[in-house]
Amino acid sequence: MSSRNSDSLARPSKDKPLFTPGPLTTSATVKQAMLRDLGSRDGEFVAAVARIRTQLLELAGVSQELGYEAVLMQGSGTFAIESVISSSIPATGKLLVLVNGAYGDRIARIAEVHGIACETLRFHESTPVEPTAVAQALEADAGITHVAVVHCETTSGVMNPIDEIGHITAERGRSYFVDSMSAFGAVPLDLRGCRADFMVSSANKCIEGVPGFGFALCRREALQACRGMARTLSLDLEDQWRNMEKSGQFRFTPPTHAMLAFDQALRELAEEGGPAGRLARYQANHVRVRTGMSALGFKEFVDAEVQGPIITSFLYPEDPGFEFSRFYDILNRRGYVIYPGKVTDADCFRIGSIGRLFPQDVDDLLAAVAVTLREMGLASTTR
Amino acid sequence: MSSRNSDSLARPSKDKPLFTPGPLTTSATVKQAMLRDLGSRDGEFVAAVARIRTQLLELAGVSQELGYEAVLMQGSGTFAIESVISSSIPATGKLLVLVNGAYGDRIARIAEVHGIACETLRFHESTPVEPTAVAQALEADAGITHVAVVHCETTSGVMNPIDEIGHITAERGRSYFVDSMSAFGAVPLDLRGCRADFMVSSANKCIEGVPGFGFALCRREALQACRGMARTLSLDLEDQWRNMEKSGQFRFTPPTHAMLAFDQALRELAEEGGPAGRLARYQANHVRVRTGMSALGFKEFVDAEVQGPIITSFLYPEDPGFEFSRFYDILNRRGYVIYPGKVTDADCFRIGSIGRLFPQDVDDLLAAVAVTLREMGLASTTR
Repeated sequence: MSSRNSDSLARPSKDKPLFTPGPLTTSATVKQAMLRDLGSRDGEFVAAVARIRTQLLELAGVSQELGYEAVLMQGSGTFAIESVISSSIPATGKLLVLVNGAYGDRIARIAEVHGIACETLRFHESTPVEPTAVAQALEADAGITHVAVVHCETTSGVMNPIDEIGHITAERGRSYFVDSMSAFGAVPLDLRGCRADFMVSSANKCIEGVPGFGFALCRREALQACRGMARTLSLDLEDQWRNMEKSGQFRFTPPTHAMLAFDQALRELAEEGGPAGRLARYQANHVRVRTGMSALGFKEFVDAEVQGPIITSFLYPEDPGFEFSRFYDILNRRGYVIYPGKVTDADCFRIGSIGRLFPQDVDDLLAAVAVTLREMGLASTTR
Repeated sequence: MSSRNSDSLARPSKDKPLFTPGPLTTSATVKQAMLRDLGSRDGEFVAAVARIRTQLLELAGVSQELGYEAVLMQGSGTFAIESVISSSIPATGKLLVLVNGAYGDRIARIAEVHGIACETLRFHESTPVEPTAVAQALEADAGITHVAVVHCETTSGVMNPIDEIGHITAERGRSYFVDSMSAFGAVPLDLRGCRADFMVSSANKCIEGVPGFGFALCRREALQACRGMARTLSLDLEDQWRNMEKSGQFRFTPPTHAMLAFDQALRELAEEGGPAGRLARYQANHVRVRTGMSALGFKEFVDAEVQGPIITSFLYPEDPGFEFSRFYDILNRRGYVIYPGKVTDADCFRIGSIGRLFPQDVDDLLAAVAVTLREMGLASTTR
């Protein structure tokens, strides 16, 4: 039996770097921030929650003074998205989801489960959402009250033009929701500038906390309008916010350890120079991934000009000797974790650039990929 | 900027012990298990998830072979309860909630939000649910299809007779749900014996993991009957289960660190002699709390024979000089965290016995309470 302060468990010196869309690699110091047990009413914990909420708004270029609010929500990022969708669209509303990947489809699926009227406007998974098509769709259907889009479609890695879409949406009097799950904290996002009423991301993406909660940044008036509209208790966005404002606490037990890790992660984001500094590292990782994989003969699924720096989809090589599960397993055994593909009409795998990864980690991965190809009898020069 | 393997953050030697219903104090080794980043598809992580699911069933005296399943759900315990309620009761169903505290009321509130027909049968917060009254209610209303009860009502600390209620419910052909949030893992619970279709608890109660997810233990046939019935995407119990069975993985990003902590917590529960060993420690804590507080002049809200070993509600002393917020603050400053009361018709505060606390911790708390009373000018002998 272990006492509260014993120290018997060996700590692994280094886990495999995770070149995935998440869970991601985090810093040792972020994880060490979890070596505490704070009560949820503890002054130190309540102060951390307040600090986190303020800093999240700052990262989106807004503040409470400007009329914006941050709401934290337990669960994965999808829980936070469902919280916004199921709390903010009235029974008489109709949602238009701009879909160019699985995460857009997931938003539409959430609307469907809740019986919310929903249309999708679809684009190929390798191309961004077309703002002009959005304008046409809004002109054509006056019943649409809300528009949702994914910032970086992690399915492929393509970036969507959230500012342009936001202006088109706002000019036509519709409410706008941005799922910036995998991009927020690194890719610039000006919540007011893009005219969004709601934006969602989660702890374990570009801010590099550990998974356990997501958050919604909200225009206060739009948030207040949600009162009594939620279709669930746990995911009631406005109730969660109102309680945080009143008591500084969560309505239900918060993931205290994940919150402390996130507080530390925000500190480390600031030390890295904020979103700009973090983006520079991710872009350096991304360029290294693309250049190195290209040199090994791999082709990308998304054109360079619409490809984001978050994650890159690579087509399977044409060589019939390439079997992804074997490629994945050998790389894994060598200590590198990549990710399967998710696009529907092409065989792809994905390599992420985000999390506590540095260009040297990418170089190590690329060397392992080269060796793996040789082990599979697929010399890179043959393709 | 911190590198992945730096070690710069000082670790506090000891946090305040938490005499609360949660978040609770956990062992150092449980927290240290979080010093890793595993991918959600990683074989080591998938194995941990499988091990956790098997062991949870064992703790409830059942197994997959006996027709039972464990489903893990991100979020707080309330999320797991909402998952069961919103996934398992059909549109034509009607829920009877046996209420003797705030957690029973919360179940009824969840049903209400989802538009599920719901009746409550109410008992005073200081007394257990009366099985004969349950039988009468079921005889009187043939429309009731489901019955829900809280095992240990943390509002007061009173224990409900889940076995008797389960037999009454099953004999009358109703489906039975037990919220054993604060009791499971220490207080004996035989899922088959009590005839429950669903039981819910969470990571950060008697199993002493960190908060971040809850779990439902389910009779497989009852779980399978939930297919397509869920009212949400994130909290769809059957879909979450089916995916775990198919891939060994969560549908959406799991709280990987909280899962690793829980895997370690289950190991430490076994080392302590399983639920019986843990209950012995909690009972020792509880007896010490009651005896010590009684010696200091405090009266309990719940009679000893129906009081559980999880948490104890104490009435405010009659002395008008007692101000709870001051009492709480002084104790907190001395390094001890107790909890406000939650019962509706009496002024109480609560002292929990669960988490990584030992009788010595209780003795330290009692000494601090005595000093605090003196500091407040309330000599214990005067009451």
